[in-house]
Amino acid sequence: MKDDLLLGGMEGGGTKFVCAVGKRTGEILFETRFETTTPDETLGKAIAFFRRHSPEAIGLACFGPLDLDPRSPTYGSITTTPKEHWANIDVIGLFRTELAVPLAFDTDVNTAAYGEFRAIQGELVSSLVYLTIGTGIGAGIIIDGKIVHGLAHPETGHLRLPHEKTRDPFGGTCPFHQDCFEGLASGTAMAARWGTSAEDIPDDHPAWSLEAHYISSALVNVILTLSPEIIILGGGVMSRQHIFPLIQTMTLDLLAGYNPSALIKQQIKEYIVPPRLGKRSGILGAIALADAISRE
Amino acid sequence: MKDDLLLGGMEGGGTKFVCAVGKRTGEILFETRFETTTPDETLGKAIAFFRRHSPEAIGLACFGPLDLDPRSPTYGSITTTPKEHWANIDVIGLFRTELAVPLAFDTDVNTAAYGEFRAIQGELVSSLVYLTIGTGIGAGIIIDGKIVHGLAHPETGHLRLPHEKTRDPFGGTCPFHQDCFEGLASGTAMAARWGTSAEDIPDDHPAWSLEAHYISSALVNVILTLSPEIIILGGGVMSRQHIFPLIQTMTLDLLAGYNPSALIKQQIKEYIVPPRLGKRSGILGAIALADAISRE
Repeated sequence: MKDDLLLGGMEGGGTKFVCAVGKRTGEILFETRFETTTPDETLGKAIAFFRRHSPEAIGLACFGPLDLDPRSPTYGSITTTPKEHWANIDVIGLFRTELAVPLAFDTDVNTAAYGEFRAIQGELVSSLVYLTIGTGIGAGIIIDGKIVHGLAHPETGHLRLPHEKTRDPFGGTCPFHQDCFEGLASGTAMAARWGTSAEDIPDDHPAWSLEAHYISSALVNVILTLSPEIIILGGGVMSRQHIFPLIQTMTLDLLAGYNPSALIKQQIKEYIVPPRLGKRSGILGAIALADAISRE
Repeated sequence: MKDDLLLGGMEGGGTKFVCAVGKRTGEILFETRFETTTPDETLGKAIAFFRRHSPEAIGLACFGPLDLDPRSPTYGSITTTPKEHWANIDVIGLFRTELAVPLAFDTDVNTAAYGEFRAIQGELVSSLVYLTIGTGIGAGIIIDGKIVHGLAHPETGHLRLPHEKTRDPFGGTCPFHQDCFEGLASGTAMAARWGTSAEDIPDDHPAWSLEAHYISSALVNVILTLSPEIIILGGGVMSRQHIFPLIQTMTLDLLAGYNPSALIKQQIKEYIVPPRLGKRSGILGAIALADAISRE
């Protein structure tokens, strides 16, 4: 295995793109970031960057929703995004005509989950759930070392949860489901409910106990469905680290001693954790995807 | 691959055990069933049956909770069941001292899920969720052709769901969580809420619309978490087949057009379905587990 193989990664977000070229050890040699404008201009800059540094495989992470079904004629495209100019853009097709290297393609959050998985893989973990709680809520799931896709990709941000209507009459902000998880607990929901953006709400405000409650309800459902070996919570809202102990306690309370919580209880502080890679999960995950495809 | 290899399967339930020996094609040659009494007597009967017919591998499915972690010193045991005499019984250990053949071990519901997976595998499905809704509610999940275990095993019966308290003031029957999925929608909950066992509630009773609502809420959460390629609903409550169209419609309504529902919407009648193997999912799943382990 050549450790000095050059690998490329792209983290394509709705407001900015990050592109990097580095080694499979995670060492980054070149990196650039630019604003997300039109698809031609933005993807053109990314392609020019990779041409300059000639990686031998590239992992492409992109905001979604994406068509990730390799059997589909539109595989590798953004599908129905409301973002102007970007609906139905064939991301992988554009790269393929310009760069003759293996390409991996996945959602931003799946890629971040994979980055985190690779960062802790030495600890014999084979499954994890990565949730990002920011403007929206998204999830990436790894089972048996692989990103879970199924029919499409997880949309765990939209779980239906018990809505504490007496304590929290706020109706929710999700345009699809009103008071789903994202509708009750995203940064957008917090700002709408409290009239202050999440980053400006003080640590001792009751907003955080309610926020921790909804996040814990979602985690209980994820644990009961998948019993993942570790849960990683990232995103803007989770940068408020004082909320972790609240979530750890409330998740155990809501599990109510139910299997498999004996194991979880013993190590709750190591079970629900912030990202090891901080804000770098996405770009390092994209390079890890390139690494995986270069070995196929 | 020898198609005439003899394989054994055991479906160990709380009230009865079924043991069978057959071929990897699913053809059963010998079968016996007996009441669940003490562990010694019950497992003794199973072992005697397999001794008589000499299968070359055996799949053991058992009621749980089970220790399924191969790294655990108590791997292969029943753990904390309230069932008298059965807590901490080392099922796989007993078989291992008596029969020198490869043994697979899993929960009853995981095994049934695997049986269903093998029954539809020809259709290029690689993931499914199997829910059994009867006295209790359990789930088995297959991803990428393998049973999902994670830290322990899924306990999807205990999902937290929005409780329709205005329409349904009933408090729920779950001794751990009161109004979780099982507490609101198991056969036990139906009987407690309506004063009549589910099998005696007429098709046009409002109980079925409420039941379909809770099942659909749970399915929405499972779909948003895993986007499985097919969902199979078995168990006593689901033998009331008139509830399938209600669940199919309500699940789409609750997804509210959200991705990946476009795909699901086109084929909802083939997406949420009864078990292909009817009541035979468990025992045929156990034989399929034996088949899988005989190939390792």
